[in-house]
Amino acid sequence: MNLRTLQEDYIDLNPLQAGGRTVAETRLVVNSYADGYAGYDQYSGPFFQIPRKETALLHKQLNEFLGTDEIFFTHGVREAKVLLFQSILKDGDLIVIDGNAHFSTIAAASKLGLEIFSIKNSGSPDYKIDPRDYEAAILQLKKEHKKPKLLVLTQVDGNYGNLVDARKVTLIAKKYNIPLLLNSAYLAGRTRVNLAEIGADFIVISGHKSFGVPGHIGGLGVTQKWVDKIQDPSKEDKPWDLPARYLAIVGLYASLETTDKRVARWDDEVKKANWFVEKMESIGGIRLVGERPKQHDLILFDTPVLEKIALTKRKKGYFLADELKKVGIVGLRPGQTQQIRISTYGLTREQLDYVYKTFVGLVKEEKYGI
Amino acid sequence: MNLRTLQEDYIDLNPLQAGGRTVAETRLVVNSYADGYAGYDQYSGPFFQIPRKETALLHKQLNEFLGTDEIFFTHGVREAKVLLFQSILKDGDLIVIDGNAHFSTIAAASKLGLEIFSIKNSGSPDYKIDPRDYEAAILQLKKEHKKPKLLVLTQVDGNYGNLVDARKVTLIAKKYNIPLLLNSAYLAGRTRVNLAEIGADFIVISGHKSFGVPGHIGGLGVTQKWVDKIQDPSKEDKPWDLPARYLAIVGLYASLETTDKRVARWDDEVKKANWFVEKMESIGGIRLVGERPKQHDLILFDTPVLEKIALTKRKKGYFLADELKKVGIVGLRPGQTQQIRISTYGLTREQLDYVYKTFVGLVKEEKYGI
Repeated sequence: MNLRTLQEDYIDLNPLQAGGRTVAETRLVVNSYADGYAGYDQYSGPFFQIPRKETALLHKQLNEFLGTDEIFFTHGVREAKVLLFQSILKDGDLIVIDGNAHFSTIAAASKLGLEIFSIKNSGSPDYKIDPRDYEAAILQLKKEHKKPKLLVLTQVDGNYGNLVDARKVTLIAKKYNIPLLLNSAYLAGRTRVNLAEIGADFIVISGHKSFGVPGHIGGLGVTQKWVDKIQDPSKEDKPWDLPARYLAIVGLYASLETTDKRVARWDDEVKKANWFVEKMESIGGIRLVGERPKQHDLILFDTPVLEKIALTKRKKGYFLADELKKVGIVGLRPGQTQQIRISTYGLTREQLDYVYKTFVGLVKEEKYGI
Repeated sequence: MNLRTLQEDYIDLNPLQAGGRTVAETRLVVNSYADGYAGYDQYSGPFFQIPRKETALLHKQLNEFLGTDEIFFTHGVREAKVLLFQSILKDGDLIVIDGNAHFSTIAAASKLGLEIFSIKNSGSPDYKIDPRDYEAAILQLKKEHKKPKLLVLTQVDGNYGNLVDARKVTLIAKKYNIPLLLNSAYLAGRTRVNLAEIGADFIVISGHKSFGVPGHIGGLGVTQKWVDKIQDPSKEDKPWDLPARYLAIVGLYASLETTDKRVARWDDEVKKANWFVEKMESIGGIRLVGERPKQHDLILFDTPVLEKIALTKRKKGYFLADELKKVGIVGLRPGQTQQIRISTYGLTREQLDYVYKTFVGLVKEEKYGI
């Protein structure tokens, strides 16, 4: 295997990878735990769920950060949703989700045979979810003599990077006495998201999406009243599968030691995202899709100008990623020019200015746009 | 989190950890892939199952090593068994397993509601599994008008470290036309185990148990006729959970580059285990449990002499692990003195001689034994 040097050699715009970049402190700890079964030094059982003496403080710190009473580790967010759904719902139960939900929410629900009512977004150009539509959905379902057993809100969706105010959905959830799950995969870890302050019941988080954790780890955070209802398979006498294992958990714990620094820069990350959107739109033929102003670093652009250029190229849409890679920019999905999806997270304004100027060059040289 | 320096600071006898120790080459590659989602650089889908261009050669190399036609990655061996069972068996089906099987075999079977017929081992002092008992089991079940749908053989068990000749079980499996699964968690990777040469149908392997891979990864290897029967959840259009993820897979692929060196020393590892058994038994009051001579590095000793000493101690059984730790030896289960379970894998004769002399000192000083 070749060593991976992509983060060192390129400016990486890949929106999936932005929040997962590790800091040296995290890598150092994880590397020291790299041996197989390194988490079993004390013979005190595997490295998950029940916090162990050596990690109790960090486990407490994570619960405090998230405003949860217990957090169950899983391989990822989809497995965290499966864990919740199979613990509190049964085949045929109805849930209300937002129309910007990740497909893994639907996959997790389909595993349990749940019925899904999906709230539409506002369509072009904002594609926003209106919290009030949760109430409208509940009332509409009531007319059909149906009551949802769970509301699911994607706090920030992975497509547009739109942020929904979770507190407003919480008020509706409380009014109708329906538990609420926040999918915070793209938010908690970039910034502080506190379940207790928001007043919802459950939160799912992603270490590799937003906490800068190596490998893959998700978590299901719950409030006290739900702790005993979560059917954790690892607590079985003879578990047939295990949730997240020690190396990913070590990484999550290790990342907590630098999380304060990480969340402190969130306001500037959002400012930077808006600054970059303004610059890119000034080129012409490139336009933000999703809410404006942005409240997050995930950015989707409509890019008709690039699509036009692609028509003139032998490589068609593949010209774009190829041209960018030549000048040190990666992370665009090869072949796509109709829209591009990027993240500005963790990049400097100087790097982003270089990206902007590269796009100016691409467009001007081709005599399209400005 | 503190850095883990246990492998640098101590002689580690922990039998779980012996085969999972990583070499520098593996760590270097894995560290370079440490960022969350680092496996998604090419936007070519996740880093499992279907081999990708950049890892196709290593995937082929792994299949050649194991004599398999395809290998499906999972989080661990138990999940690999679940994957196989749910792919080819159904609720109520009967399987025959050996009495030294790991509890996760039983857990995996119980998940599917399988009926289990367990072959007894030979009891004290060898606790061996006789391959001929598979035929006896099949004939006995036939009298009850039952036919097993699968035979499962633990090639090396984790309790005694006994090795069973898989070829002999294969002959029986073929005679009665019943597929055979080899649980090779403790063998393949330490040495070459080749499914095609053995003639069985399935093999499960463990990266962290025997290939020196960081984190956790298991694999289900199958022959060509079974490839399409494996119901890989990651191949669903909307998978609700994913098998082993990229960091563990990178580790397994990386480890293959040093596997030749690793397996080349296996004969000496076995010799060393027998040499150590002889030394330890010469102390008196310490006696090997399991087959003799040993064919593996996992060693279980009856240690009545240590149990006697423990009775005189304030800390009771905990004295042993405590005393050993003071002189730089770790890996014994704290509190246990009736039996001790260790591995000699990867330790030098000089280190093992030091361990032996330490036990001599413990026993002599206490005026027990010799």
